[in-house]
Amino acid sequence: MARLRVTFLGTGTSQGVPRLGCDCEVCTSPDIRDTRTRCSLYIQTPDLCWVVDTGADFRTQCLREKVRQVDAVLITHAHADHIMGFDDLRPFCRHGNTLPVYGSADTLEQLAQVFSFAFHPPKRSPGYLHPEPIVVRGEFKLGNVSITPLELPHGRTISLGYLMKVDGQPWFAYLTDCKTVPLDVERQVAGVRHLVIDALRERPHPTHLSVGEALESIARIEPGEAWLTHLCHDHLHSDLEARLPRGVRVAHDGLVLEMD
Amino acid sequence: MARLRVTFLGTGTSQGVPRLGCDCEVCTSPDIRDTRTRCSLYIQTPDLCWVVDTGADFRTQCLREKVRQVDAVLITHAHADHIMGFDDLRPFCRHGNTLPVYGSADTLEQLAQVFSFAFHPPKRSPGYLHPEPIVVRGEFKLGNVSITPLELPHGRTISLGYLMKVDGQPWFAYLTDCKTVPLDVERQVAGVRHLVIDALRERPHPTHLSVGEALESIARIEPGEAWLTHLCHDHLHSDLEARLPRGVRVAHDGLVLEMD
Repeated sequence: MARLRVTFLGTGTSQGVPRLGCDCEVCTSPDIRDTRTRCSLYIQTPDLCWVVDTGADFRTQCLREKVRQVDAVLITHAHADHIMGFDDLRPFCRHGNTLPVYGSADTLEQLAQVFSFAFHPPKRSPGYLHPEPIVVRGEFKLGNVSITPLELPHGRTISLGYLMKVDGQPWFAYLTDCKTVPLDVERQVAGVRHLVIDALRERPHPTHLSVGEALESIARIEPGEAWLTHLCHDHLHSDLEARLPRGVRVAHDGLVLEMD
Repeated sequence: MARLRVTFLGTGTSQGVPRLGCDCEVCTSPDIRDTRTRCSLYIQTPDLCWVVDTGADFRTQCLREKVRQVDAVLITHAHADHIMGFDDLRPFCRHGNTLPVYGSADTLEQLAQVFSFAFHPPKRSPGYLHPEPIVVRGEFKLGNVSITPLELPHGRTISLGYLMKVDGQPWFAYLTDCKTVPLDVERQVAGVRHLVIDALRERPHPTHLSVGEALESIARIEPGEAWLTHLCHDHLHSDLEARLPRGVRVAHDGLVLEMD
């Protein structure tokens, strides 16, 4: 069993790819890597398993990847494409247990407003989802993994990135949904084995990194390997990947990274 | 073109079928009719198209059924399995138009709490979802269809059923998510051509009709044809349908009913 195993449940922007009603080359592509559900990760370790974000596709993603265990949830921020599948955590919260949910104070407050029936039920139904909100204020541990939250500017919101270390080794950094990567965050994730970074499209966007902006940040961070995520329907997977510098790849739904 | 065309986008209970992590006979059935996404309808008429409910599967359902036009939305009630895909209406709300959303005052208030960024944005982003809430207080028209709301008890909530008439003819009644069908509602939908009714499972449930309870109501309503919906993973489609009286069928995702 890998010490850390990351499965990309989703790698798409808020509307997913294909976009509803769109007949473009990407939205009709036969390449399965061009089908992108909303951004989410599934992390497995020998002790514990957790997810990062639960968009509307969460149940479909779990069926596809045969997810059978979720011991905790990390939320990057409370935009719709990252939380609307939260209720589908229900089967992972059984036998009267609670499910720890990590996020910033703002994010957990917004999540509790949307899913008030789970966070503040008038009466708790037996066997129903019982989240335990945990405000992230600094590094925390899940099993053998140390997790450092990283504040990222994302429009009017601060999104949390997460750096995951095993035995002090920075192995995986997840920086989705950000307009820039602040210098102190670049320093914290410098040299990480796998860097996953927002790269919505080549054209600039007011709240997301473009491919060019992501590449500039990657060049400063110098990861072992970089993976672009949160992509829209502007580029075929194969076309975009062919244009990228060595060591930079395009993530896709179902991609697995393993630390031996 | 049919005067009224109903496509069942979803026919499953809140957790869908297959249920996450379940290996039962139904959840592993090769019969496509045993795959049930969350309850929703797509209605097409020569003038207008609308959906009833937008659960988390809404985008997946629209891709499957190639839905390209939505002019209005009807919500039965604001439970998670009926609303969490609401944000995926975005591509149907373009060119500065608003999207009319019909429901009870309570339902629309809860919907606006969950999707406050769409109903009460600090600043409305161009090209973003702009719902126009319309409180249903009695019969209303969409194109050539007269729609009568029907109050149904559903635990602590009142769910709205909808009766659709064309040229005064009661053609389609949708009674999902109810514990009973009150006598005055049975009278209003008596003799309807197609009755769709909640029938979660054979065992009783505190907030949903059982198959037996649904059959009793169907016998009093005497529809042309009755369709069971909102099913859980207790029964194979084929097994359940084989046991039903003449004129009662089991709905499934993708089922289409047409009024010539």
